[in-house]
Amino acid sequence: MFQKITAHIQRDIQLNSSELEEFHSLLVEKKVSAKEFLIEPGKEVLYEYYVVKGCLKAYYLDKKGNKHILQFAVEDWWISDFEAFFKDEPASLHIEAIEDSYLLGIKKEILEPLYERIPKFERFFRIKTTNAFVALRSRILSSLQLDARERYLDFCATYPSIEKRVPNYHIANYLGITPESLSRIRKSL
Amino acid sequence: MFQKITAHIQRDIQLNSSELEEFHSLLVEKKVSAKEFLIEPGKEVLYEYYVVKGCLKAYYLDKKGNKHILQFAVEDWWISDFEAFFKDEPASLHIEAIEDSYLLGIKKEILEPLYERIPKFERFFRIKTTNAFVALRSRILSSLQLDARERYLDFCATYPSIEKRVPNYHIANYLGITPESLSRIRKSL
Repeated sequence: MFQKITAHIQRDIQLNSSELEEFHSLLVEKKVSAKEFLIEPGKEVLYEYYVVKGCLKAYYLDKKGNKHILQFAVEDWWISDFEAFFKDEPASLHIEAIEDSYLLGIKKEILEPLYERIPKFERFFRIKTTNAFVALRSRILSSLQLDARERYLDFCATYPSIEKRVPNYHIANYLGITPESLSRIRKSL
Repeated sequence: MFQKITAHIQRDIQLNSSELEEFHSLLVEKKVSAKEFLIEPGKEVLYEYYVVKGCLKAYYLDKKGNKHILQFAVEDWWISDFEAFFKDEPASLHIEAIEDSYLLGIKKEILEPLYERIPKFERFFRIKTTNAFVALRSRILSSLQLDARERYLDFCATYPSIEKRVPNYHIANYLGITPESLSRIRKSL
């Protein structure tokens, strides 16, 4: 149950068995079936989630009912409505399972005391947040630098396993192109 | 010289005088005149900078020569080509001073040893990076949620002092609207 998240964390920090045990005791299991919502607009966002198994999408639904996919998550990724989570605001995103998913959640209110007790976790989450920040800057820059074909190749490199698990029109939405353009790009490769 | 950055840091962490002294000894002064570049594409990005005085813009110049302003920075903000800084890649952004600016730079390679010696700095930069990540997510969401008028009001709230110091067409560029639309919005308020 904790094997994957343990390996995930030990890539950045080294923990002894009592520290690991303490960390595991703070995690909450969460199962969501395909098409079920993990987070919905207006609701409180108490957890950020590590994906043990499954595939999810985070999207914003605008006033006209258009969906804007901001993030996918598969095994070994973290997902939440991070803005709401960190700012203690109600969710503005939908997070929906694309496949049956098994997650481990960590509650915001336990993070600060955890950092106090085991400062290595402060390091871990500093590294993760820096990576997430850099990835988001990269994505903004890609949208300015690259054409649709290059953005698709970039997507395949960033999310190698998702590309086979997510419907075409989701990927097109994430890339900001039409499903028809995506089909043309795929055929040309 | 260090008064502002000291107050800035002590908002998040408490440091004793020897810790402060050590931190100050690691900072490098940097002056850039208006229209001078702090960072240019292709160059190494060794520092992130705290703005003591002045005003700068970070922008990406696309293949067609169009400018895309990603960030402004005034007093009490941090600026760099963060993607390049954290990934040890050459810069892809221009960072240019709008006004004569006085900055304090911190070198990437001293950060890790600093975190080891004074873990409170790990906390400080975790908090700053989380805020930057959340601000970037907010900006992406604003671009989906809000119309041009609302985005302008949001901008004025986020950057109250910049709004009076930066030319109209820079703000329009940042907001992704034409300078004419911005003028119309301003008149309507």
